[in-house]
Amino acid sequence: MATNLCRVLPACSRAALNGRIRMSLSATSCCHPKMITRMSHHEVPVPPGETRTESDTFGPIKVSTSAYYGAQTARSMYHFNIGIPTDRMPLPLIEAFGLLKKACATVNKQFGLDKKVSDAIAQACDEVIAGKLNDHFPLSVWQTGSGTQSNMNVNEVVSNRAIQLLGGTMGSKKPVHPNDHVNKSQSSNDTFPTAMHVAAALELNRRLHPALKHLHAALNKKSKDFASIYKIGRTHLQDAVPMTLGQEFSGYTHQVAMSIERLKTCEPRLYELAIGGTAVGTGINTPKGFGKFVAAELKELTKLPFVDAPNKFEALATHDTMVELSGSLNTLAVSLMKIANDIRLLGSGPRCGIGELVLPENEPGSSIMPGKVNPTQCEAMTMVAAQVIGNHVAVTVGGSMGHFELNVFKPLIIKNVLHSIRILSDVCHSFTDHCVVGIEPNTAVLDRYIRESLMLVTALNPHIGYDKAAQIAKKAHKEGTTLREAALALGHLNAEQFDKYVNPKDMV
Amino acid sequence: MATNLCRVLPACSRAALNGRIRMSLSATSCCHPKMITRMSHHEVPVPPGETRTESDTFGPIKVSTSAYYGAQTARSMYHFNIGIPTDRMPLPLIEAFGLLKKACATVNKQFGLDKKVSDAIAQACDEVIAGKLNDHFPLSVWQTGSGTQSNMNVNEVVSNRAIQLLGGTMGSKKPVHPNDHVNKSQSSNDTFPTAMHVAAALELNRRLHPALKHLHAALNKKSKDFASIYKIGRTHLQDAVPMTLGQEFSGYTHQVAMSIERLKTCEPRLYELAIGGTAVGTGINTPKGFGKFVAAELKELTKLPFVDAPNKFEALATHDTMVELSGSLNTLAVSLMKIANDIRLLGSGPRCGIGELVLPENEPGSSIMPGKVNPTQCEAMTMVAAQVIGNHVAVTVGGSMGHFELNVFKPLIIKNVLHSIRILSDVCHSFTDHCVVGIEPNTAVLDRYIRESLMLVTALNPHIGYDKAAQIAKKAHKEGTTLREAALALGHLNAEQFDKYVNPKDMV
Amino acid sequence: MATNLCRVLPACSRAALNGRIRMSLSATSCCHPKMITRMSHHEVPVPPGETRTESDTFGPIKVSTSAYYGAQTARSMYHFNIGIPTDRMPLPLIEAFGLLKKACATVNKQFGLDKKVSDAIAQACDEVIAGKLNDHFPLSVWQTGSGTQSNMNVNEVVSNRAIQLLGGTMGSKKPVHPNDHVNKSQSSNDTFPTAMHVAAALELNRRLHPALKHLHAALNKKSKDFASIYKIGRTHLQDAVPMTLGQEFSGYTHQVAMSIERLKTCEPRLYELAIGGTAVGTGINTPKGFGKFVAAELKELTKLPFVDAPNKFEALATHDTMVELSGSLNTLAVSLMKIANDIRLLGSGPRCGIGELVLPENEPGSSIMPGKVNPTQCEAMTMVAAQVIGNHVAVTVGGSMGHFELNVFKPLIIKNVLHSIRILSDVCHSFTDHCVVGIEPNTAVLDRYIRESLMLVTALNPHIGYDKAAQIAKKAHKEGTTLREAALALGHLNAEQFDKYVNPKDMV
Amino acid sequence: MATNLCRVLPACSRAALNGRIRMSLSATSCCHPKMITRMSHHEVPVPPGETRTESDTFGPIKVSTSAYYGAQTARSMYHFNIGIPTDRMPLPLIEAFGLLKKACATVNKQFGLDKKVSDAIAQACDEVIAGKLNDHFPLSVWQTGSGTQSNMNVNEVVSNRAIQLLGGTMGSKKPVHPNDHVNKSQSSNDTFPTAMHVAAALELNRRLHPALKHLHAALNKKSKDFASIYKIGRTHLQDAVPMTLGQEFSGYTHQVAMSIERLKTCEPRLYELAIGGTAVGTGINTPKGFGKFVAAELKELTKLPFVDAPNKFEALATHDTMVELSGSLNTLAVSLMKIANDIRLLGSGPRCGIGELVLPENEPGSSIMPGKVNPTQCEAMTMVAAQVIGNHVAVTVGGSMGHFELNVFKPLIIKNVLHSIRILSDVCHSFTDHCVVGIEPNTAVLDRYIRESLMLVTALNPHIGYDKAAQIAKKAHKEGTTLREAALALGHLNAEQFDKYVNPKDMV
Repeated sequence: MATNLCRVLPACSRAALNGRIRMSLSATSCCHPKMITRMSHHEVPVPPGETRTESDTFGPIKVSTSAYYGAQTARSMYHFNIGIPTDRMPLPLIEAFGLLKKACATVNKQFGLDKKVSDAIAQACDEVIAGKLNDHFPLSVWQTGSGTQSNMNVNEVVSNRAIQLLGGTMGSKKPVHPNDHVNKSQSSNDTFPTAMHVAAALELNRRLHPALKHLHAALNKKSKDFASIYKIGRTHLQDAVPMTLGQEFSGYTHQVAMSIERLKTCEPRLYELAIGGTAVGTGINTPKGFGKFVAAELKELTKLPFVDAPNKFEALATHDTMVELSGSLNTLAVSLMKIANDIRLLGSGPRCGIGELVLPENEPGSSIMPGKVNPTQCEAMTMVAAQVIGNHVAVTVGGSMGHFELNVFKPLIIKNVLHSIRILSDVCHSFTDHCVVGIEPNTAVLDRYIRESLMLVTALNPHIGYDKAAQIAKKAHKEGTTLREAALALGHLNAEQFDKYVNPKDMV
Repeated sequence: MATNLCRVLPACSRAALNGRIRMSLSATSCCHPKMITRMSHHEVPVPPGETRTESDTFGPIKVSTSAYYGAQTARSMYHFNIGIPTDRMPLPLIEAFGLLKKACATVNKQFGLDKKVSDAIAQACDEVIAGKLNDHFPLSVWQTGSGTQSNMNVNEVVSNRAIQLLGGTMGSKKPVHPNDHVNKSQSSNDTFPTAMHVAAALELNRRLHPALKHLHAALNKKSKDFASIYKIGRTHLQDAVPMTLGQEFSGYTHQVAMSIERLKTCEPRLYELAIGGTAVGTGINTPKGFGKFVAAELKELTKLPFVDAPNKFEALATHDTMVELSGSLNTLAVSLMKIANDIRLLGSGPRCGIGELVLPENEPGSSIMPGKVNPTQCEAMTMVAAQVIGNHVAVTVGGSMGHFELNVFKPLIIKNVLHSIRILSDVCHSFTDHCVVGIEPNTAVLDRYIRESLMLVTALNPHIGYDKAAQIAKKAHKEGTTLREAALALGHLNAEQFDKYVNPKDMV
Repeated sequence: MATNLCRVLPACSRAALNGRIRMSLSATSCCHPKMITRMSHHEVPVPPGETRTESDTFGPIKVSTSAYYGAQTARSMYHFNIGIPTDRMPLPLIEAFGLLKKACATVNKQFGLDKKVSDAIAQACDEVIAGKLNDHFPLSVWQTGSGTQSNMNVNEVVSNRAIQLLGGTMGSKKPVHPNDHVNKSQSSNDTFPTAMHVAAALELNRRLHPALKHLHAALNKKSKDFASIYKIGRTHLQDAVPMTLGQEFSGYTHQVAMSIERLKTCEPRLYELAIGGTAVGTGINTPKGFGKFVAAELKELTKLPFVDAPNKFEALATHDTMVELSGSLNTLAVSLMKIANDIRLLGSGPRCGIGELVLPENEPGSSIMPGKVNPTQCEAMTMVAAQVIGNHVAVTVGGSMGHFELNVFKPLIIKNVLHSIRILSDVCHSFTDHCVVGIEPNTAVLDRYIRESLMLVTALNPHIGYDKAAQIAKKAHKEGTTLREAALALGHLNAEQFDKYVNPKDMV
Repeated sequence: MATNLCRVLPACSRAALNGRIRMSLSATSCCHPKMITRMSHHEVPVPPGETRTESDTFGPIKVSTSAYYGAQTARSMYHFNIGIPTDRMPLPLIEAFGLLKKACATVNKQFGLDKKVSDAIAQACDEVIAGKLNDHFPLSVWQTGSGTQSNMNVNEVVSNRAIQLLGGTMGSKKPVHPNDHVNKSQSSNDTFPTAMHVAAALELNRRLHPALKHLHAALNKKSKDFASIYKIGRTHLQDAVPMTLGQEFSGYTHQVAMSIERLKTCEPRLYELAIGGTAVGTGINTPKGFGKFVAAELKELTKLPFVDAPNKFEALATHDTMVELSGSLNTLAVSLMKIANDIRLLGSGPRCGIGELVLPENEPGSSIMPGKVNPTQCEAMTMVAAQVIGNHVAVTVGGSMGHFELNVFKPLIIKNVLHSIRILSDVCHSFTDHCVVGIEPNTAVLDRYIRESLMLVTALNPHIGYDKAAQIAKKAHKEGTTLREAALALGHLNAEQFDKYVNPKDMV
């Protein structure tokens, strides 16, 4: 890769090491003059192959002819070579930006933007929304904390593609200027949080809610199928009183139902959009009503009930609602951890575990132990849950650290929220399809436990009192007998009474 | 302290070291016979002073004559000497247990419990609720994960106090038996989670909501008082476009308003009570409708809309709703962190910081630097926020790890939730009374910043375009001049235009 | 409680509600004049009973005659009524302050402090160290983030007690001034972090290390006792190849041994003390060598190898070393969670669980299910682990947020670190004494699993290859037979070969 | 994409929705018979294009002709379609697996593996190590928690590539069998944790340590360059006593130096490898000494001092050492958060902030505010720090939840550890090159603050006492004068004394 060498630091020799361009630190004799104003002291390297010239307020820069992005994107790629290629700005956010820029173009037309320009922007945005230009959004999450560079990336790509559609010259900014037209009446500071809300709302609705309903339906079906299968309940991991397997699964089903409710509780705040606040929330340089119109347009485009945020200062300076949403995802993770843990414990065995459930066998379980089948879907589920719990802490830390008019942990926050939604959705489908639907009760084992358990003694409490009941259980436990034998031996009640009082089916 | 020595481990010499009774590990030649059944191999030490005998299914035990608690509490004190005295089971939980046991006694009367017994229980519970018996609840949070021992602690204290009221002999269990009467139709497994919900709901309503309203009112007043005070906004900690100080405070106000809303979103689930589920959720040994009647009674006693939980299996086996509530407290912590951070940064100085706000001076700031005043209320607030974020992770971990029919992290969970509610409530009052109400703008500083800032240039964008506006700002910055001088020198507009376009009051 | 009413806010009516003194918010017509300089606008209430007058730079204040503390402590009690009485500054920190103030007095004597004054300070400090004055340290953790008020609390108590010892008048500051003598050559900014390190180091050495050694010895003994007990290993909760119970316990033992090592890794940094840095790290107002001499004195007093921190700026502005230590406690919590979880799962049953271990029975397990014995020590252990994980996040957040020359989350950080050390230490003793030492293998169950397991098939891999071995296991599993039967039926090897190859004792 | 339809669930119609293959839930009338043994009820879809047949113990399966992987990888792709393509198993882990499999092949040769086979394996591994086969490792992190499927992915790719090198037929498992040869004497349960340690150790040494040294050198240089630049120190964000800018940077430098030390503390445990433990730690099916020889071979290949883990049970069943390492990364994140926060606050302005530092200008700062320059590198740094703090919680949760002989959160744990190392390394380079090296002091501002600050008054404490010094500072503050004027007006000392005592250069 050819590079333009640093003007102000001539001794600087950049070495491409491990794919990174770095300045040699040995160049300590940097001769650059006393800086009076702030200035860049690094030139962005020229990419290989054919290039064209793009420019921003810092001057001209070379980008690949095949790229739609412009100068600011190219600068960011160079200055934020962090975690690439894994940690690119997530695609659902790019899609949300496409929707937002289209909505803005439509509203700007009302406010006087040239129709041809507006329409070309909308057409370019449609391609962004459809994912056709995904390769042109190369930036790292770990960039400026306002996401300005990704907003500019979108402005540049949309502008150049619109120019192309209108037969212009890419990089000329004519007839579609990235700032003056695509970003018209907007700021990174209101577009990025708007795109965050739109992306999260879309992913929740098209991905997580269907996945949770899918899981809920499968658990609910099992709960009903298992309604007459009696089993011993367990508390403290110790044998307790009987219940049905259907009741146990009804608990899981209810957990998922409540998770769906919980996720809905933050929607009133999630649908509130920052757009119209521009730089600090005052809406400077933006026509009155702009935010309201754009929200309406987005509602039309997505069929989700977006509205204008009532307080734009809060909407830019904080991401409390993202922290709240992440909290709901955290609660969901906790629920799923419990469900998956229970199922793998109930399926433990086949001969030396609890073994009440038979889980589907999807793959060879071990590279060394043939015939071994593992609760792999439960493992994926619990790992995802742990990740979501961690992501929530990252969101919490980022959310807590805003300063003044702008929280600058925006890319971190949306990355983690979208990641949590994505892996939760996927794992709910996977766990449902490859585990839940195939779960079968091991009735032989379930029956044996019911017969052998000592805890049916609880049924005697109302008849002979707690202390005598305890005496029976302790005797049977000590001597390895059944409760019935111990009860009769102690004479606390007769056989007829025992059989009448101690019946699992009456205990659930 | 006298001790009964270990029967099965005679070599064991217990030394009172750091207040703890421990078995010497050097006693490795423990001679106890092959254990066939499980058995306790430690005797509980006899307390100093006068004692009476109490007993449980494990046998008799000596407790102080002055104590209302009985054998199981005494055993727990011995076996769980962890974090004492700091980490006692929180008092609001004890109060909630008092309310619950009273409600149960009332409902049990309907189901046939002797009126005299029921009334004596209710009277004893009133003393628990009023905090008169607080000293008799000595147990550590770090006990069994179901809180069984604290449920028994309540049963024992209420039973003995009721016995005393009825003229009986404490420890005799007559005429009021801790299990058969006080705990009638209940299990630790449904009473403890019920008390958790009652305690959290009470503390939210009588402590946190008033505190948040108090803070909200104070911030809202400031927001209005400061409505005409212009200031420079800041994004990325860098000077940005103007706004009013009132607008900035309106963001904080809105954050608190949203926090109040968020805390309400989980109420429908928080008011659902586990009572009636008994051991595993099936309601074994409990009359039909018991849960519903107790919830109604608690509603009457507390004026909070408690109801019967629709799925008792979920209500015992999980604490997803506590994780959810903790998530809302976490979001609140994030909001408060932001507000307190902003206020201390805006109040930084007096001469070498930002200095836009004058914070109340409550105490000498430094033991070495006279005259120094520190944002101490902000510091308390941000420390509380950090603690709540940590508590939330503890709740999350505990919530994720339930097994089967019972989550056994109950004491951990309620301790952290109540702690978060308490310190958030207290710090909101403290921060409001000792900081917010006394905040004054430093108008001299605010005005100077508005005059000197370069960012008013943004107002020129719609008139001369982004690139020329940038040119003006850069020139003024480089040369240390005002924007007006730079604008005229560059000739992009004349003086009249400049004065017309660049007016802070038009920019907010 | 009588109160002096607010001078500047006359409409303010303070109501004692829930033990808190609050200003009525309805008093919005606060008439206080335009504040020119910062001023306190609340008077501290006068305590009930006999009082004396104390004073600080803010003026005189009434405190109880029986209290040793002075004006600044009284102010702090009023301004930081948060989480009291639970969240008082932890006592080990007060003890460490006693040691530090004594060491400083000794060193100050070398630098010219009057011998009589120095000796009286040292004598008063001895009482602080011995815990005799604990009631005089009433302040909340949630105070100023530098802990200044607790440093002054110590200065005031030591000064007044020393004055008393010398026959002077408490509150007169003569002949022992809290600032000029007790705090001589010190600042809150260097004493508080010094006391943090001293307290943590003391608690680690006298509490946590002995507890871990105690646990290690007990686990190690079990590992040896169980060396010849064969059992089936489990991976993915599924039956795997055999091992000994001793090997399994050797893993736990090794975890604890490594935890001890991990805790030692941060000692070189923990023994470094901030003292001598005074206000910002430069050591202003402090004689050269002061820090070094005080560290040496503390080494002498505690027998721990304290040294002068090499960079005082880092030592005041950050608590990276506390975050590091908390990280080691977090790792320990993770280890203990695993050990306690395994043990309770292995002890699950008695008849419907895994049941390989018999755990000691310490208390009645259930208020409703007689005869039920629960792994209560494991539950306490896992709850403590969850708390420590949460505390670590609080420490991490507090540690990350220092500003400039002083981290102001000091009380939060030390509270959480000391809490983690304390509950980890206590629970290690409790878990060892009341669980580990009494664990017995259930050999009947262990043997049955070994006989029935299919996973011994793994031993055939080297003899007949993976695919044929898998075929045997699958056949036995499907048909409910033993491996031997399946192997012979398939003809992959003969009986003699089978018995030779498949021997659990050869597989461990 | 063509699919083989589900045998046991014929109604199942798989729809490719959002890139996922899912079973329609409406197919609730699944007719599959009572399952007796566990069975797969889904067939893996056939990929488009040319295919060949691969097989495992579950039977034959079609894979793309161009793919090197085999049946188990294909099954995993189908069953764990979670978070793809973002959340693929990290490449450094694949590389580590390449090194490990090569080392095993070499050792197996000593133990009798055919030389030709061994050499072909080694050659194929070299290609894995060099990254040439990266496209053939498509599996998700969210798979089985032991990473078995990734171990098999490596076995399959290496086997097929070795077969190809030897002129055989891919998929034939001849002459190089994925299990019998590539995985010889190994298990997923020991290879995966071994690869985790190797990958983390490699990334630490080649990526993070150089990055930290780079940052350390740059900060150290600044600390020296700024040694004579005086500034006002700040505590509680309030003006405090003077220091030099070099001293302030020395604190940052020391933080980074300590981070480097901290990361080294866990190396003794990180270099311990699980290899040789096979399935449960006993080393079944593995020749004696295998682990030791492989560790030696890896030491040779990587030049890192790998050794045989002393306790294999701990090495498989726990990842305490990964939690420990993650804790060190968490501490580093905390350090970097502080440094980056300070630098952006010191660089705030240009005219309405603290403004002591001038940060390099790398890109246009705002899409709407021309001329605005933001501390973007600090923002990237603090976002990375927040992510690492979150990742640490994920690792902690995963580490705490192992069961019995195998922790099954392995992929989660290594993903997060490698992610943290990667983004910390990259951001340290970025922050150093694009921010630290270009930081300049704003001497005009620094000087003004020193002149105006009131806190130089501290220098008077030893001369006139704390109370009089406070009086001077308060007077100057109240009246807006200099300290000198106030001091002389109060008559506490004369001009000559003042000028002698109050000299910033004497105060640092």
